[in-house]
Amino acid sequence: MTDAPGRLHARIAELATYNDDPAAGGITREIYTRTYAAALERVMAWMREAGLEPRLDAVGNLFGTWAGAEGDAPRVLTGSHVDTTLNAGAYDGVLGVLGAIEAVESLRTSGFAPRRTIEVIAWAGEEPRFGTGCVGSRAAAGELTRADLDRLVDRDGVSMASALRLAGFDPDRLADATIDPVSVHALIELHIEQAIVLETHGEPIGIVEAIAAPHDFRLTYEGAATHAGATPMALRHDALVGAAEAIVAIERLATGSPSGSTVGTVGVVRAWPGAINVVPGTVTLDVDVRDSDAHAREAIVDEIVATAHAIAAARRLTVTVDEIVVDTPVACDPTIIDASVAACEALDLSFRRMISGAYHDAMIMGRRIPVGMIFVPSRDGVSHHPDEYTSPDDLDRGVAVLAEALERLAR
Amino acid sequence: MTDAPGRLHARIAELATYNDDPAAGGITREIYTRTYAAALERVMAWMREAGLEPRLDAVGNLFGTWAGAEGDAPRVLTGSHVDTTLNAGAYDGVLGVLGAIEAVESLRTSGFAPRRTIEVIAWAGEEPRFGTGCVGSRAAAGELTRADLDRLVDRDGVSMASALRLAGFDPDRLADATIDPVSVHALIELHIEQAIVLETHGEPIGIVEAIAAPHDFRLTYEGAATHAGATPMALRHDALVGAAEAIVAIERLATGSPSGSTVGTVGVVRAWPGAINVVPGTVTLDVDVRDSDAHAREAIVDEIVATAHAIAAARRLTVTVDEIVVDTPVACDPTIIDASVAACEALDLSFRRMISGAYHDAMIMGRRIPVGMIFVPSRDGVSHHPDEYTSPDDLDRGVAVLAEALERLAR
Repeated sequence: MTDAPGRLHARIAELATYNDDPAAGGITREIYTRTYAAALERVMAWMREAGLEPRLDAVGNLFGTWAGAEGDAPRVLTGSHVDTTLNAGAYDGVLGVLGAIEAVESLRTSGFAPRRTIEVIAWAGEEPRFGTGCVGSRAAAGELTRADLDRLVDRDGVSMASALRLAGFDPDRLADATIDPVSVHALIELHIEQAIVLETHGEPIGIVEAIAAPHDFRLTYEGAATHAGATPMALRHDALVGAAEAIVAIERLATGSPSGSTVGTVGVVRAWPGAINVVPGTVTLDVDVRDSDAHAREAIVDEIVATAHAIAAARRLTVTVDEIVVDTPVACDPTIIDASVAACEALDLSFRRMISGAYHDAMIMGRRIPVGMIFVPSRDGVSHHPDEYTSPDDLDRGVAVLAEALERLAR
Repeated sequence: MTDAPGRLHARIAELATYNDDPAAGGITREIYTRTYAAALERVMAWMREAGLEPRLDAVGNLFGTWAGAEGDAPRVLTGSHVDTTLNAGAYDGVLGVLGAIEAVESLRTSGFAPRRTIEVIAWAGEEPRFGTGCVGSRAAAGELTRADLDRLVDRDGVSMASALRLAGFDPDRLADATIDPVSVHALIELHIEQAIVLETHGEPIGIVEAIAAPHDFRLTYEGAATHAGATPMALRHDALVGAAEAIVAIERLATGSPSGSTVGTVGVVRAWPGAINVVPGTVTLDVDVRDSDAHAREAIVDEIVATAHAIAAARRLTVTVDEIVVDTPVACDPTIIDASVAACEALDLSFRRMISGAYHDAMIMGRRIPVGMIFVPSRDGVSHHPDEYTSPDDLDRGVAVLAEALERLAR
């Protein structure tokens, strides 16, 4: 199914060595770091080997171009990202970039000459170094403002604008990264499933029909930082106990969502001053709520916010809610779904129509242009973790379906 | 009541300018930092002004000596500490050191010549930079081993041994810091109350009869760090939700303690990997439980540990318990209590016999030598916080009682 069996797996392993925290056991390669830039150089070299001409846009999105016979026809885009979250796995995002390079190489070797230009993309900052994910595709979709670049800061307080400058980009050229929707025919993204639906059903390929979208916000509880030994229990305003009740409530409310597909997570908790002998006076919780059903999701967010306020009132704390991001779930394009189904049938591979619980750059672009996604299994559904794994055979099957689908979309 | 009205208040304000994080609004002056060393230089200068001869021991405890007529008689010690926790107030500890210098100056001015040598002490590391508090008095009590200096690490992973070396001390000379109990007649510590008992009862002086002691431990919950979008609620092993249930339970169990004086606090929470789109796989909670009744305290600790395990079992998580410190509550010495009562009566000040909910260096030394404590009010009971405040009149009343008590103990 591929010209060079095992090559994709070897390249994924090689890219995994670009890692800022190998001692943690996983991969840490956040956007706009030196390690990320070095990894991108390696990807560009592989693009050139596959006959793709690389270029970086104003926010660091990487495009590798295979010019089509009809140069002004709307293009076919495919790609994902090569940045990671903290202590992550090797496949999330990386498969969609390196697999697309493999698919192009395979199409070129087979003698295919595209009518439409094909571009392989590594989007910048899919993972939320700056609190918000998909900053590269958001810039391409025209959804990021110059003010956002100053507002979005990482956990060390570095703004996205500063990080861009340090990485050699000019934040004032943000608008240059916008992609004109009429110039695009289709965007198709190959990705690991990051859950256990394919594994549970024993199917090698998922064809995505809709992408769930997050509503992310921060709850800040404020009480009084007082002495842990000298302050009797009855006189406390402990921000952490209030926040803990909110964490438990978020799980309960998401689990009870009528849609059955809502998920709610507190991934980040910070408590100040953070000493064992001081009652916490301030606590922040970063909350992520997702669903492919936007109405169900918003109903749960409303319940969480109401419960957070009720907890604060009962405990004589204050709570504030700050929006981080509200994204719209996206339905995939029927033409791309059909091309993916035809690809599976041509390759005699079984497949499953499904929802993506994780968001992807395709979701961001899906508000402007036709998008689709192809999933391959993730062992035990583990992702964003060092144990993330997809077998070489599953990787190659995903690349084969992507190549067949690209051929149908670009010819 | 003092030779120089307002001087103590002014000196406390001056010492507050030795601060590693003024932007936070409070005072951050942790042990063995350059800022701490500079503050200690200032204290030594004030000691010399009061006729005290300063010297540092092997772990950085500062002693200022006023030689008594009978040089080999057991000494009278008085002091507290000038290190702070993070973003703290100006009075905790500092009053007991600068107030003791004032008391000595006042006694000297009055013509008093002590029979016993009086030493003013600034203990090193009362606040728990290395997880455990009172490291200086623990060293003096012979309760710290050379291995402890390597084992105890701060939040950046710096061991106490490394911090000592960086500050110019030799960790291998730890044993030199031990104080022989037979060389000490009494230790009396002046401190702010850090609670609202004196304020509530309108009394200017507290005479401490017993000091509550902490049992500190760390709970580590382990689950699975999986994708926050793609992992359905039913398939999660979310370490943070389990930890949140434990935080709520700790408050409930401490509040319900039959002794009525148990307090339980989670002051530090850490979640890994700490990204908004990842279910937390590992969470640590640093727990502090205190009581002047050791049996009541241990019963609550046992209930907390049992509940922590029950939560883990119900959620398919694991939990481990690591001891940080287990201290023994201390009863104050009747001779020192009597001297303090006589001092209040001589000054015509009302006073209250009470328990200290906070631990102090006096508690550590109290296992070896006779100890006592004098409290002055803290406005609103606020401590370990920038708003910590005691009025100049209350400060001066505390110094006057200390001077009278020292005179009775050293003559």
